[in-house]
Amino acid sequence: MENSHHVLTLATINPNVVQMQYAVRGPIVIRSQELEKELKEGQKKNFDHVVKCNIGDCHATGQKPITFFRQVIALCSYPALLDDPNFPEDAKDRARDILAGCAGASVGSYSNSIGVPIIRERIAAYIKRRDGLDANPNNIFVSNGASEAIKALLLLCTSQSGPDPVGVMVPCPQYPLYSATISEYNAYRIDYYLDESNNWNLDEAVLEDTLAREKANCKPRAFAVLNPGNPTGQVLSRQCMEGIIRFVKRHGLILLADEVYQFNVYNPDATPWMSFKKVLHEMGPEYADSVELASFMSASKGYMGECGFRGGYCELINFDPDVQAQLFKYLSARLCPAVLGQVMIGVICDPPREGEPSYETFVKERDSVLADLKVKARLTTDTLNALEGVTCNEVQGAMYAFPQIRLPPKAIAAAKEKGMEPDFFYCLNLLEEKGICFVPGSGFGQQPGTYHFRTTILPSVPVMRKVMADLGDFHKDFLARYSS
Amino acid sequence: MENSHHVLTLATINPNVVQMQYAVRGPIVIRSQELEKELKEGQKKNFDHVVKCNIGDCHATGQKPITFFRQVIALCSYPALLDDPNFPEDAKDRARDILAGCAGASVGSYSNSIGVPIIRERIAAYIKRRDGLDANPNNIFVSNGASEAIKALLLLCTSQSGPDPVGVMVPCPQYPLYSATISEYNAYRIDYYLDESNNWNLDEAVLEDTLAREKANCKPRAFAVLNPGNPTGQVLSRQCMEGIIRFVKRHGLILLADEVYQFNVYNPDATPWMSFKKVLHEMGPEYADSVELASFMSASKGYMGECGFRGGYCELINFDPDVQAQLFKYLSARLCPAVLGQVMIGVICDPPREGEPSYETFVKERDSVLADLKVKARLTTDTLNALEGVTCNEVQGAMYAFPQIRLPPKAIAAAKEKGMEPDFFYCLNLLEEKGICFVPGSGFGQQPGTYHFRTTILPSVPVMRKVMADLGDFHKDFLARYSS
Repeated sequence: MENSHHVLTLATINPNVVQMQYAVRGPIVIRSQELEKELKEGQKKNFDHVVKCNIGDCHATGQKPITFFRQVIALCSYPALLDDPNFPEDAKDRARDILAGCAGASVGSYSNSIGVPIIRERIAAYIKRRDGLDANPNNIFVSNGASEAIKALLLLCTSQSGPDPVGVMVPCPQYPLYSATISEYNAYRIDYYLDESNNWNLDEAVLEDTLAREKANCKPRAFAVLNPGNPTGQVLSRQCMEGIIRFVKRHGLILLADEVYQFNVYNPDATPWMSFKKVLHEMGPEYADSVELASFMSASKGYMGECGFRGGYCELINFDPDVQAQLFKYLSARLCPAVLGQVMIGVICDPPREGEPSYETFVKERDSVLADLKVKARLTTDTLNALEGVTCNEVQGAMYAFPQIRLPPKAIAAAKEKGMEPDFFYCLNLLEEKGICFVPGSGFGQQPGTYHFRTTILPSVPVMRKVMADLGDFHKDFLARYSS
Repeated sequence: MENSHHVLTLATINPNVVQMQYAVRGPIVIRSQELEKELKEGQKKNFDHVVKCNIGDCHATGQKPITFFRQVIALCSYPALLDDPNFPEDAKDRARDILAGCAGASVGSYSNSIGVPIIRERIAAYIKRRDGLDANPNNIFVSNGASEAIKALLLLCTSQSGPDPVGVMVPCPQYPLYSATISEYNAYRIDYYLDESNNWNLDEAVLEDTLAREKANCKPRAFAVLNPGNPTGQVLSRQCMEGIIRFVKRHGLILLADEVYQFNVYNPDATPWMSFKKVLHEMGPEYADSVELASFMSASKGYMGECGFRGGYCELINFDPDVQAQLFKYLSARLCPAVLGQVMIGVICDPPREGEPSYETFVKERDSVLADLKVKARLTTDTLNALEGVTCNEVQGAMYAFPQIRLPPKAIAAAKEKGMEPDFFYCLNLLEEKGICFVPGSGFGQQPGTYHFRTTILPSVPVMRKVMADLGDFHKDFLARYSS
């Protein structure tokens, strides 16, 4: 009983913490870090480095920051640079405006708990340009990444007391922040399945069936949806969005719209992206004036990929002002979101305008990233579909493909013998043999008896081609090894 | 029933959120913001701006950032500056080291969930220099301010399930992050009173009595202590620290040591500050090898006051490795702390060394801030004690004075008539009449029937003199108004 002297043990700590899982940084990723260490120590492998396709971390795979955004950050951090002629005037204007909005003209002071006012105004102006609808800065709060905002909204909706847990509907497959947070808060997760055969859309009938089956187990209160989808990469059809809105209205649910990939849409003519706010508005006052909607956005994704800044925001629509005040009071205990993260999301919402000195460079940098992503989305979809026993819906948006892999019964048996999920076993073998890190579908949820993995499309085009070629070789070998 | 159509109302949201209070940004502060708005709109008052003595926000009151730290931040944000001859080589060295530790050499990539390894190494080296004891970087995690780390530790200790709530012992008065978080987690708060007559120290007998009285109501699991104290400004005696360590060992409690003001000690010869880690070590293996201690530090306080960066860290000592792994897994769901906040706390732990080009400027800037704080600590203590019916322990550390004010019965009656706490009423009147924003003692907790307020000592020396003079005038008037 080596550990018996500890006060905190697995038996005494919060069981919700023990229960929560976060696959994007789970065991496969931990093994990939060990492999990197082994390589560094000189061990010989089939590969000389690990390609991390497990996480939407753009700069880690070589994408360069947008120059303008980083110039504004440097100017705000070290205002002596405002006198440096090498910095463009539009970047200096943005920095001066923001510093004027910070107490003591310093990004080192605390801001309002919900964010620097001028930054919330810039966000509101962006939303207005995007949707053609008014946005009130007082209904927007800035957060440490979208994650913090999503967790705060879930906290508001759930409750540790009372006889029935609060139910939160989440897509299956889903981004595991939702399941992890629901575990943490001891709430009740209601999985609604996305229809893989219909490009990961969903219809009202499935939602109705799911809720009818589950509502005896909880008090359903919130409905989470990701558009574009993660891990699934679809852009929801307008018809599907309208169905969701009718459903949440009918059943009295809060709509949590995770729209952090709104810039990542690769064929907007064929599959246009619209905000839930806009669709809600266009459905008329019966919906527009009543459905409680929280929409989340992040600095981490899009063409900028500034994950490390942890900048995000949430817009609240139709919330009870008293509830909004309680939420903002809650946020005050963490004092404020990191101010440079606020600056980042603020300047993303207020990029160089036509005629400003940085405009051309900005457009070139942005469009180059998005054009590359479009190429990689196509390449990934096509390569995966060419593999035996693999099918993959088109990567229409976000940064991920989520193909289905049909595994031979012998492979499934071999996995179960080792106490592993079959797709985990597949991904672990791929990692060990080829140095490619994917996340197994079981980390996101999937229809029982089906197997998937998630890969990002972020490595550079040549690396992505190599990943797909190596995957093809591995996959062929793997099938051969476990065929009867 | 205007709000009856809302799904989320005060009746349906998480009751723990409704219950939590955070006085540092509470109603008095909200009123001060309204006053500022009214002044801006041209309304006439007895003052032309509000002096915010409510929050330890150094830069907001005019303190300037330490040049070296901001240079490193600018270099990391915009690495093109590494070629700029105006930046010193030591700042460039720090930035190059840190960027080499970031994926893709970008602060825009995610870091490890517990922080960039090289930054954790710098923190460990600082702790070793401070205490003369080894520190293991693998037992250190970086956080969004100390607040996030404190909340994570409390989450680990508490639990929403089981019949008895988990008990957390907190000082009274205390910094309200603790009470707010305990409310949020629906845990049980055990207040232990600090002894105002003994310079806010405490003794084991009081702790024993408190625990004996409260342990039927909960499962006591953790003990929080702040040193230097907030709101109380004391530096704990070594004897008192040893008493705490014996107490937590005897009763099987985790020790949460909030040491964020470790640089803010104004008379270290008379009242030396020591870390709990060092005291624990010096008490011998019976304690050093078993007491589970978490120590918290922040970039927001000290001489740097970089609140907006939200940089902090926690060192874990004697924790069960399995528990530590669970905590780190939990932290992975928020991905990582803001990377520039990590850079800030990392460079604070690795400032210019003797012989480096920035050393002299750094020392001058640091010592100037600390010398000013020392003057203001003295000034505040002395002025407060000169007021009729006011007594104040010496401000030995941190950034606050917490004087006791003896209010006339008529003032107490007048407050109660308005449904206000008497010290809230006092602070509100001071704000309306003089434009000075303090936080009432009731926001921190105090012995029943006693009244206090907390003021920071952060405004510049001339402003602080004016604040104390205005307070003196107000106080005299207030006593006269409510004398029989």
